[in-house]
Amino acid sequence: MLAVLLFVAAALQPVDLVVRDGTVVTMDGQRRVIAHGAVAIGSGRIAAVGTEAEVDAGFRGAQTLDARGGIVIPGLVNAHTHAAMVLFRGIADDLKLMQWLQDYIFPAEKNNVTAEFVRAGTRLAALEMIRSGTTTFVDMYYFEDQVAEACKEAGLRGVLGSTLIEFPAPDNKTIADALAYAERFLTRWTGDPLVVPAVAPHSTYLASPETLKAARALADRHHAPILVHVSESADEQAQVRQRYGRTPTEQLQRLGILRRGLLGAHGIWLTASDRAILKEAGAGIAHCPQSNMKLASGAAPVREMLAEGIRLGLGTDGAASNNDLDMFEEMLTAALLAKHGSGDPTVAPAAAVLEMATLGGARALGMEDRIGSLEPGKRADLVVVGLDEPRLHPLYDPVSHLVYAAKGADVRDVVVEGRVIMRDRRVITLDEKAVLAEADRLRDQVRRSLGH
Amino acid sequence: MLAVLLFVAAALQPVDLVVRDGTVVTMDGQRRVIAHGAVAIGSGRIAAVGTEAEVDAGFRGAQTLDARGGIVIPGLVNAHTHAAMVLFRGIADDLKLMQWLQDYIFPAEKNNVTAEFVRAGTRLAALEMIRSGTTTFVDMYYFEDQVAEACKEAGLRGVLGSTLIEFPAPDNKTIADALAYAERFLTRWTGDPLVVPAVAPHSTYLASPETLKAARALADRHHAPILVHVSESADEQAQVRQRYGRTPTEQLQRLGILRRGLLGAHGIWLTASDRAILKEAGAGIAHCPQSNMKLASGAAPVREMLAEGIRLGLGTDGAASNNDLDMFEEMLTAALLAKHGSGDPTVAPAAAVLEMATLGGARALGMEDRIGSLEPGKRADLVVVGLDEPRLHPLYDPVSHLVYAAKGADVRDVVVEGRVIMRDRRVITLDEKAVLAEADRLRDQVRRSLGH
Repeated sequence: MLAVLLFVAAALQPVDLVVRDGTVVTMDGQRRVIAHGAVAIGSGRIAAVGTEAEVDAGFRGAQTLDARGGIVIPGLVNAHTHAAMVLFRGIADDLKLMQWLQDYIFPAEKNNVTAEFVRAGTRLAALEMIRSGTTTFVDMYYFEDQVAEACKEAGLRGVLGSTLIEFPAPDNKTIADALAYAERFLTRWTGDPLVVPAVAPHSTYLASPETLKAARALADRHHAPILVHVSESADEQAQVRQRYGRTPTEQLQRLGILRRGLLGAHGIWLTASDRAILKEAGAGIAHCPQSNMKLASGAAPVREMLAEGIRLGLGTDGAASNNDLDMFEEMLTAALLAKHGSGDPTVAPAAAVLEMATLGGARALGMEDRIGSLEPGKRADLVVVGLDEPRLHPLYDPVSHLVYAAKGADVRDVVVEGRVIMRDRRVITLDEKAVLAEADRLRDQVRRSLGH
Repeated sequence: MLAVLLFVAAALQPVDLVVRDGTVVTMDGQRRVIAHGAVAIGSGRIAAVGTEAEVDAGFRGAQTLDARGGIVIPGLVNAHTHAAMVLFRGIADDLKLMQWLQDYIFPAEKNNVTAEFVRAGTRLAALEMIRSGTTTFVDMYYFEDQVAEACKEAGLRGVLGSTLIEFPAPDNKTIADALAYAERFLTRWTGDPLVVPAVAPHSTYLASPETLKAARALADRHHAPILVHVSESADEQAQVRQRYGRTPTEQLQRLGILRRGLLGAHGIWLTASDRAILKEAGAGIAHCPQSNMKLASGAAPVREMLAEGIRLGLGTDGAASNNDLDMFEEMLTAALLAKHGSGDPTVAPAAAVLEMATLGGARALGMEDRIGSLEPGKRADLVVVGLDEPRLHPLYDPVSHLVYAAKGADVRDVVVEGRVIMRDRRVITLDEKAVLAEADRLRDQVRRSLGH
């Protein structure tokens, strides 16, 4: 008997972790939803996805994560944010854009944003993102080295771009300095298992044609994604049209910067021709409905982008204009706004919106070979959503609940690159109390800096 | 020394409960926000609101509720819902309205809605509402006696209307039966400390002029609120116009039914003239942004109603079209939709939206003398919102956080009519496990009834 048992045991492939007994929403090619499913994980990659019986027949996990009574989904991809701006959440709301920027955001940034501030803010953002099921975040800010360090400390995956902008920024006072910083940043982080360094020219109105071309050259040399704001406001459209006689998308195309792995944030004012250009280039768009509504910037043409098959992700934008980083709420708002905007309740159905927040974000980044779905070979980024709340009973359809009834607070466990970074709502990688205390201390500093 | 101490103690007014050491957002006439505030409660009413020192100087509570580190707000008023429909949440989404109703909602109701079903559904809804900070809900459904019984069992306050509709309903097959039921319902519940019985003719398109007049007479005899759907869809507008040559509001006015204490749900297609009529009559509107967006019904003229001072509350509608009963999320959506719709980020500021969900709902019901703010003499309905989540740090402005960053899941304690019905997220009045098990069992029944 002993010999037989040893033989059976030897036939099982040892893996690091098996996630057991959840309803697995795979987002694979067949969009399989597997009841009593399991995911086997080794060396940070997904080794197998199937029913518990199938996985048990082939794999033995050194560790187990019990997903019983929960839904297992690919980790959410927040396709556009400025993480450290959580430290400015609620500093001012309900103002006209220019008043909000000039009286609050710009002075608050000018007087407070240092390397240490960005590190503290990114830690706070990371806590919030982990606790609401985000496993990959796409960031554009200043002092991006500190963003990357906090990202790794938190155990999150980040696509992180050092901002290139034509005015003196908190980290780099000239474009030459910013480009040199960006080059060092790319060199330092390329090849990191969690941090994907990117190049982030702000936009076609706040980065010159020369800067945009330099950004493209830099990104190409390092095989890096490019992050840029595109068509966020009517003002931007008008300004770019006046200066260059083109839309922002046409300007990016003209400068040779559009390609797979370029992710444009917002895309509210995209024309039909812009969308055709983006689609042809394989570039992506990050839809940010809550921030767009809060700033009254307009609504992106989601119905059209979905119909046209544009690589479409979902982002929260920074918490100064959201005011949180909860991707569940962002999914709900994306569904509601697309229906409202089109006058058609069949637009942006739950499955399409869940895709935006997972595989769609991965495609928008040109990273669908690595993240966005639960399939063998991909990085093991997944989230267990608990169904304990009365709000999630009864359950007719897990995908409906994920978009229309679940909240970030229902996230129970989070795994990134095969590592459990939250278990039973306890974040393992960061000292929550210390992070919150530091954030509260910085609030007092920000207030003083604004003369409050 | 002993004599002195006794004397001091004797000078303190004994009360049942003191809520201590929270930031108290009163919603009183001065909209005071009191740091380290307290609320003294006796016989279900608010005895005092002030700083902790002020309240301690005058009152001694038999019980204490520690609100430290939290925000104390008036209990939220869900001004329009169909509570028991939580049992149909997620049964079908993303469909055209008539397909959704005819293929799912109507057959599901026809085959399942019994007295016991309504009781079970209302219990589930009550759990969810308590856990997300609602203390008063306004309900229109069938078997309203069971709604009222579950409401009392949960310890919630309810304004509950037995529906009058011109087709055979699950509880009453004719209008004559429905009117007789409504009369018995009013007689049974009038004077109850928690249940305010109301009369609920469905709308001007699904209740005849005779039914609407009978409803008004009944409501007047019992001094009861009237609940009615008003201008929810473009189809409704067209139909009422075709049949009567008027808008729904004009039709209600013509029938003499408009008055203070009439609460119209939705109000999406109200004209400027309709709004003037409603304002003059002192009638209220329940804005339901999430349901309206999900069904692509349009957006109510919130900017205009706020500017005109119409009595404006906020509601979730039923969970079949929401898909939950979270008033925090509804506040957020109300703010975002009003800004988006008007193209102006200054519209529907946080303070106005918090008012919609509290005092505004009370005013819309004509009940502002009893609920909606924390002021001496009012019923003691309040909620403690915890600020533990990273999402609520740092804190610059409690009102901003309540609308833009807090979620139902942050609600820690709930008090209705002076009774603590949830403490530290444990609901005291209902057996959570039993309620969820019953809901799950009924899901299987609903599925079978639809042939799934």
